[in-house]
Amino acid sequence: MNQVEEFNAYRERMNSKLLNDNNKIIKRIFNLDTNAFMEGALDVKTKELLGLVASTVLRCDDCVKYHLETCYKEGISKEQVMESLSIATLVGGTIVIPHLRRAYEYWEALEAS
Amino acid sequence: MNQVEEFNAYRERMNSKLLNDNNKIIKRIFNLDTNAFMEGALDVKTKELLGLVASTVLRCDDCVKYHLETCYKEGISKEQVMESLSIATLVGGTIVIPHLRRAYEYWEALEAS
Amino acid sequence: MNQVEEFNAYRERMNSKLLNDNNKIIKRIFNLDTNAFMEGALDVKTKELLGLVASTVLRCDDCVKYHLETCYKEGISKEQVMESLSIATLVGGTIVIPHLRRAYEYWEALEAS
Amino acid sequence: MNQVEEFNAYRERMNSKLLNDNNKIIKRIFNLDTNAFMEGALDVKTKELLGLVASTVLRCDDCVKYHLETCYKEGISKEQVMESLSIATLVGGTIVIPHLRRAYEYWEALEAS
Amino acid sequence: MNQVEEFNAYRERMNSKLLNDNNKIIKRIFNLDTNAFMEGALDVKTKELLGLVASTVLRCDDCVKYHLETCYKEGISKEQVMESLSIATLVGGTIVIPHLRRAYEYWEALEAS
Amino acid sequence: MNQVEEFNAYRERMNSKLLNDNNKIIKRIFNLDTNAFMEGALDVKTKELLGLVASTVLRCDDCVKYHLETCYKEGISKEQVMESLSIATLVGGTIVIPHLRRAYEYWEALEAS
Repeated sequence: MNQVEEFNAYRERMNSKLLNDNNKIIKRIFNLDTNAFMEGALDVKTKELLGLVASTVLRCDDCVKYHLETCYKEGISKEQVMESLSIATLVGGTIVIPHLRRAYEYWEALEAS
Repeated sequence: MNQVEEFNAYRERMNSKLLNDNNKIIKRIFNLDTNAFMEGALDVKTKELLGLVASTVLRCDDCVKYHLETCYKEGISKEQVMESLSIATLVGGTIVIPHLRRAYEYWEALEAS
Repeated sequence: MNQVEEFNAYRERMNSKLLNDNNKIIKRIFNLDTNAFMEGALDVKTKELLGLVASTVLRCDDCVKYHLETCYKEGISKEQVMESLSIATLVGGTIVIPHLRRAYEYWEALEAS
Repeated sequence: MNQVEEFNAYRERMNSKLLNDNNKIIKRIFNLDTNAFMEGALDVKTKELLGLVASTVLRCDDCVKYHLETCYKEGISKEQVMESLSIATLVGGTIVIPHLRRAYEYWEALEAS
Repeated sequence: MNQVEEFNAYRERMNSKLLNDNNKIIKRIFNLDTNAFMEGALDVKTKELLGLVASTVLRCDDCVKYHLETCYKEGISKEQVMESLSIATLVGGTIVIPHLRRAYEYWEALEAS
Repeated sequence: MNQVEEFNAYRERMNSKLLNDNNKIIKRIFNLDTNAFMEGALDVKTKELLGLVASTVLRCDDCVKYHLETCYKEGISKEQVMESLSIATLVGGTIVIPHLRRAYEYWEALEAS
């Protein structure tokens, strides 16, 4: 199983457990997460890039992976992703760089999958 | 002097002092900050929204004000700004809400100025 | 107007504007915020202390003020609040101390109001 | 060796090295960490939940594991833990979710051990 | 009262209240804070710069002010302070810049006092 | 391959990919990172300790490893490194402790390599 499949399998298995656990607040946060990234005054691509940058400056590798995958599926180009990540690195500082390395590796895994 | 003018006056006065201080690293970071938000694979509006969301989840009021003003000058609509801020609040959590209140107040000040 | 009244007046005025702005995601986050602190498997007092500690380690002065006020209204003792804040300072480090000073001052304002 | 044993073995081995290294500040911080969670105006269970929520919003997986284990030993119910984690996710935002997944997995490992 | 005097007066007044409040954990953290910056394998100047950089990347204005003042009293040059702050801005990103502006302003107030 | 070699191999491989990707902002940030730690008003050893403490309080394991290695090569003593890390743990709180454990382990790997 490659890196992308492994990440998704774990994510789906645990999300399913969390949603079956019946904590209302957690369920609603998951639900909001789906709604917030749907088309509105901003299109889906822009929103995914916003999610990617927010995840990157907050240095959440799993969140970065998730948004990279959605960006990839939405047809956002590597150049656009890299510009977004460069803004995140500038705003968030050089402590973002290790996450940038892992993001780049994950994007390559998405392209190879 | 209103809130917008006061913020800009202080910002410009201190930036000018920092740039005259001749620390090369700081000068170059300021320079990068200008370049990173110029048109490239992504347009200026998208980049400003990325900067706004990064600033908001990192809870930097002054950075939020700066990007709100640039968004305003670029003609980004209030609805688009609010959607961006809603993503930031969801990703960054309810601790973002006090910054959201101040952002909303600053946007009103921009509209009134 | 004292510190407590001033904080609440601004908070209510801006919350009302945010809720009237009609961004669904923000409305729902506000709504969740109310629900999450209602009695469940844990009582309201414990939940308020959890909210206080979360706000303190994340160094959000306005969130700390809000939870201090709810703690005060729930009849939580100053000693219990201080023990919670001491855990927050230990876990979050000495950068929490300036927020601890402001929290202490706000608690005194609550007692004096 | 399961996940719980592995975590504890590494933690104990390295803590022992750190304490033998004779840096006074580090020794005293470890000592404070023990004292802060002892019964006082608040009982041990409440303090452990405060520690859990502080660790979760600061997104420290190892700290979360440690407090989950103490919560488990103190007889705190899964429902109470989940309510605490739901507050942490709301306050800290969706970037907490990957840590929530790992926390849930660790709680299951504690129940299975 | 100038900015330096105002900051110190508030800081001392509230620290005194916190220490009189008799919470042991908080007292010991304050005590550790004094010990950690005393001469050891590293000299006091180096330790103050470490405290300054830690405070700056964690974006704690009051902590920055405190360490700027100690740096100033220790005879650390403005150029050395600026190099330390430039490292903090690079590592912590452009969100550090508003704190850099306020740090620069406070250093000027120290020189003028 | 030991822990040190593994870390460096991955770091170099991905840095090389990032630099070949031709995003100007990222290239310049990498370039600044080299310049900021060169001798100036402060010597290289002090700057490396500043980088180590900044990385530790921001809880970036890879950044900590990188600066530990440079500290090691510069001949900084273990006692000086531990004093720096103790300041970082005090300022950043007990959530830094898991990173302290991994830092200590990495320093041992450097000594053994």
